Amino acid sequence: MNVSPLTPASFPDLPAIRGVRLTTARCGMKYQSRDDLMAMLIDPGSHVAGVFTKSDTAAAAVRWSRERCRNSTARAIITNAGNANAFTGEQGMQDVVTLCTGFAAHIGAKGEDVLIASTGVIGEPLDCALITAEFETLAKTDDAGWLAAANAIRTTDTFAKGAGMACEIDGVAVQLCGIAKGSGMIAPNMATMLGYIATDAAIAPDALQALLVSATNKSFNAITVDSDTSTSDSVFLVATGAAGNAEIGRADDPRINEFRAALDNVMQDLATQIVRDGEGASKLITIDITGARDESSAHKIAMSVANSPLVKTAIAGEDANWGRVVMAVGKAGQSIDQSCLTIAMGGVTIAKDGGRIAGFDETPLAAHMAGDNILIEARVGDGPGAARVWTCDLTYGYIRINADYRS
Amino acid sequence: MNVSPLTPASFPDLPAIRGVRLTTARCGMKYQSRDDLMAMLIDPGSHVAGVFTKSDTAAAAVRWSRERCRNSTARAIITNAGNANAFTGEQGMQDVVTLCTGFAAHIGAKGEDVLIASTGVIGEPLDCALITAEFETLAKTDDAGWLAAANAIRTTDTFAKGAGMACEIDGVAVQLCGIAKGSGMIAPNMATMLGYIATDAAIAPDALQALLVSATNKSFNAITVDSDTSTSDSVFLVATGAAGNAEIGRADDPRINEFRAALDNVMQDLATQIVRDGEGASKLITIDITGARDESSAHKIAMSVANSPLVKTAIAGEDANWGRVVMAVGKAGQSIDQSCLTIAMGGVTIAKDGGRIAGFDETPLAAHMAGDNILIEARVGDGPGAARVWTCDLTYGYIRINADYRS
Repeated sequence: MNVSPLTPASFPDLPAIRGVRLTTARCGMKYQSRDDLMAMLIDPGSHVAGVFTKSDTAAAAVRWSRERCRNSTARAIITNAGNANAFTGEQGMQDVVTLCTGFAAHIGAKGEDVLIASTGVIGEPLDCALITAEFETLAKTDDAGWLAAANAIRTTDTFAKGAGMACEIDGVAVQLCGIAKGSGMIAPNMATMLGYIATDAAIAPDALQALLVSATNKSFNAITVDSDTSTSDSVFLVATGAAGNAEIGRADDPRINEFRAALDNVMQDLATQIVRDGEGASKLITIDITGARDESSAHKIAMSVANSPLVKTAIAGEDANWGRVVMAVGKAGQSIDQSCLTIAMGGVTIAKDGGRIAGFDETPLAAHMAGDNILIEARVGDGPGAARVWTCDLTYGYIRINADYRS
Repeated sequence: MNVSPLTPASFPDLPAIRGVRLTTARCGMKYQSRDDLMAMLIDPGSHVAGVFTKSDTAAAAVRWSRERCRNSTARAIITNAGNANAFTGEQGMQDVVTLCTGFAAHIGAKGEDVLIASTGVIGEPLDCALITAEFETLAKTDDAGWLAAANAIRTTDTFAKGAGMACEIDGVAVQLCGIAKGSGMIAPNMATMLGYIATDAAIAPDALQALLVSATNKSFNAITVDSDTSTSDSVFLVATGAAGNAEIGRADDPRINEFRAALDNVMQDLATQIVRDGEGASKLITIDITGARDESSAHKIAMSVANSPLVKTAIAGEDANWGRVVMAVGKAGQSIDQSCLTIAMGGVTIAKDGGRIAGFDETPLAAHMAGDNILIEARVGDGPGAARVWTCDLTYGYIRINADYRS
């Protein structure tokens, strides 16, 4: 497998989070030469929040975890890479019950306190025995660390994805670390997006869930590789409380301003790593929309630009084809007034007030378009709505990877 | 330019429509070696209906024609290929006025009775003088026929698109002919979708408009190449009344049942020709959704499948990857129950009631997937809603054409 040209220089040095243990094992369901199972073991008293795919064809694991997550009392999250157990009917849900209750017995927990995520091919029955045979290893081994965990959840990912930050809550030092997988947004066969973030901060369940939803909207929900949505996308946020701060009860508590910013930062870092690993990606594209009616409208316009195959192929060709940006803004259905539209690429304003700037010369843009990081900005009116999303270009590599993936 | 492998064997033999004259000329704005201007000259007393792009960044020609079309009294529709006059601000609208009033003077009509369509690059000022210099030719020459007209409106099209049918209204023989252009849906630089259909039937303005809207929803609005929407898409339907039938006042008049079917047929023929000429297309894909809540819901699910890059690349790879169809149905946001989902490809049922058919063998599907015409069917529930849409596969050719188109 070729490694993405946008791979970060190295996996970050991430400390263990007190109250969380990461273990891995090899069941060989699809990948024979590396670990393909990961468990995040969580100390009692921790709280767990989750955000899941909105797909109507959500996989069995998603339906289980979404429901059980509401208790916020999970003691483990287990993950297998190689089979998504999606669109597998009643048997698929029975397999989830078998796995979660089975693993619970190994760690002295209740079945409902084990969450699960599965990633891989859709529609194939799961061979549970391969996984349960590794439960003893997953339950008992020492902490394997974030890099090993990030590697065990990979499918088509060309690099392991991790990010972390330290900050303070009320004068108490807390850590925040996470890993993710995903390389299309989202290739349903195997490039499901999964994220696992853990902190030793003490945060109450409702506040934790609110923080996760907000950060997801600005990170994993603000990226797109190909507009497709997986049946298995799941993001988990675990707060163990081991840092010893006084438990935070509300997401808008000013004492966690710094923590909130760190969480946004870690999740945006992970999300843009997924885009950097987008199938065939050669450039990371940042799209900033301002002046929209509201944030939701700005987000829709930004996603319309980010998902436009014509915009994405133009960037692959290093062409500052701003006319395609005009088209993509126009088709978003947000009733903008084109006579107020301003478009810039690489910080250079190209069009203003509904028309190209007189005598505009594209030459200075050539160096920007030849680079790895492309910036597209559009001001669509005088409203307060702004949104930033990330995508990658659309290249021959995307076709190569996806036109004959399963076979 | 390579010709699409899905090009029809020949352009159909289309008769002239009494009351309509088609002329062409060469202004050389972009294409030097062929005609690039087309006029449809319409006898007084005819009625004209139009349907236009919903883009917020609609081109000047669209804004003019949409408004003037309401009178239903147009005497000409002029078209230039090579410059879309889109996102050109105030000057762009002044240029439209110059062209329409200028041409009106050559045919003894009012400026408001000349409609216009422009296709080509976005954001470049139009050189009106090149076009007006050819007005005498466009106004005075003999009928050039449908093929010459279809060729003059081409941009990235690799073949001329025409279709026609004869039928009867109330025992009177009437003709229906049309041409179209478009090869992405829609590459805004030049692959705008334009359609011109003419009949000698006598049909009142409101009925004509209703017939056009209905037929467009089942044809041009039911195709997609890359989910992008042009700033210039326009479809015109002219009814001259020269056939001599008693004028039809209502679109649901049973006397035009046959005509209505013929119109749907001609427009679907033109629409699928556009898909066959989709940038890089190697296969025509028909998607049939049944069992949805209503027709609109079925259409949304069908378009979600048709616009999925993962479905389209799988078909390019001749892979019957039905899991990607499950994903695309699921992401459409139509609240379907996956346990009721049935999926077939090439007429072979693959999955039923939420899971793959036990012991399903893909081997018989290989011949279908290797062919030019791919059929995907999904039954998503027990509702009455059904929709059919067409798309093409996503290939290296699409990237090649679009990654470096403008330069």
